[in-house]
Amino acid sequence: MTNETIELLLKRKSMRVFEQKPIPEDIKASILAAAMRAPTAGNSMLYSILDITDQKLKDKLAETCDHQPFIASAPMVFIFLADYRRWFRKFQQAGCEAVPAPRLSDLILAENDAVIAAHTACVAADSYGIGSCYIGDIIEQWETHRDLFHLPQYVAPVSMLVFGYPTQQQKDRKQLTRFPKEMIVFENGYHDLTDEELMEYYNNDKAKAFCTRKYTSDFALEMERSAKEILKNWMGE
Amino acid sequence: MTNETIELLLKRKSMRVFEQKPIPEDIKASILAAAMRAPTAGNSMLYSILDITDQKLKDKLAETCDHQPFIASAPMVFIFLADYRRWFRKFQQAGCEAVPAPRLSDLILAENDAVIAAHTACVAADSYGIGSCYIGDIIEQWETHRDLFHLPQYVAPVSMLVFGYPTQQQKDRKQLTRFPKEMIVFENGYHDLTDEELMEYYNNDKAKAFCTRKYTSDFALEMERSAKEILKNWMGE
Repeated sequence: MTNETIELLLKRKSMRVFEQKPIPEDIKASILAAAMRAPTAGNSMLYSILDITDQKLKDKLAETCDHQPFIASAPMVFIFLADYRRWFRKFQQAGCEAVPAPRLSDLILAENDAVIAAHTACVAADSYGIGSCYIGDIIEQWETHRDLFHLPQYVAPVSMLVFGYPTQQQKDRKQLTRFPKEMIVFENGYHDLTDEELMEYYNNDKAKAFCTRKYTSDFALEMERSAKEILKNWMGE
Repeated sequence: MTNETIELLLKRKSMRVFEQKPIPEDIKASILAAAMRAPTAGNSMLYSILDITDQKLKDKLAETCDHQPFIASAPMVFIFLADYRRWFRKFQQAGCEAVPAPRLSDLILAENDAVIAAHTACVAADSYGIGSCYIGDIIEQWETHRDLFHLPQYVAPVSMLVFGYPTQQQKDRKQLTRFPKEMIVFENGYHDLTDEELMEYYNNDKAKAFCTRKYTSDFALEMERSAKEILKNWMGE
């Protein structure tokens, strides 16, 4: 049993090379409208979306987000922000008593809200044949991004999506293999994979390459530094 | 311009009352297959999914997740976990040199991966007419959930989704109003809303009620305590 949406979700691929073709304003509006109907904790919309239309800012992001030039050539770029600032200011305005500053759990709820909205935008775009790619590197370079986008306290970058009409080469590219269900889905309780399973499904050389490229690389170290600063700033430390 | 998927995303509502009708195994498999094709950082799938089929566990979750009885009567319950454990063990198995333990930034990437997979499952379910509701309360009661689901270090609860065929009353329920686009989407840079905007769009009484119900309530205090413990445990502190 299947349907149009399932087909879309199953054939999803990240797209990184785009046609030089703008995204029509009505399509962009539709994608944003869908994102804003995404589920959100207590209907409180603990996120904001930055719509980056200024080419100079895209050029800058292509540098600050681990030097990925394709970011600069994406016709549509959204940054998703955890945002508890609106509510905190409103609590103060409304004269709520003894209101604590936003906490770690509020940041987590807001990050989840931001990602749920982001992924709704992602699926909406896919439905129009518009490809996209998540850029987790937006949580690097906190001080630069804070200044560039005027982010006050209780507003923190969570994720970025770049969008565009994919080139034929991107559309033809094969989907990457994912790990099998028995490594990801567990019934009623978690259990560690056996050494044999780890050996069978993960190639040692690939694991080493992944470790070097993604886990101990310069950008990963910068991401850790920056993530810690974002958390400190949110917690007022 | 619209399509089937956009219509689905625009009419999304959380559903909390379900028909006593099981979800067929092939539909569940299709929802999980879609979730596992969700975008993931570096194709690394930094998450696991617990498929809760044991009624006793559902009954327990209905208590531990802020006493919400409808959780117990949901025919399908998935818990999404941030999971860096698989990769960390693999790095050790592969003999990678000087591998640091998973860090804050790894937790954030894994949480984002988990939420992206969760929301893909959510959209997939909607496409089959299966309603769902996010339960953020799964990050409360860390010690209980850790023991209940055998969660080792570098595996942390992020979100829970309960699914079922919604009753007619739930289907007929009106969508909640969301804040207008000008409060959520900003072009090129963030700016604070004015006091007038905060006053216009947020009702003071509603803000006070929200603060009491969601922000300074017992479950919010427990969520903060638990979230801090989850972070400490992940960081090995």
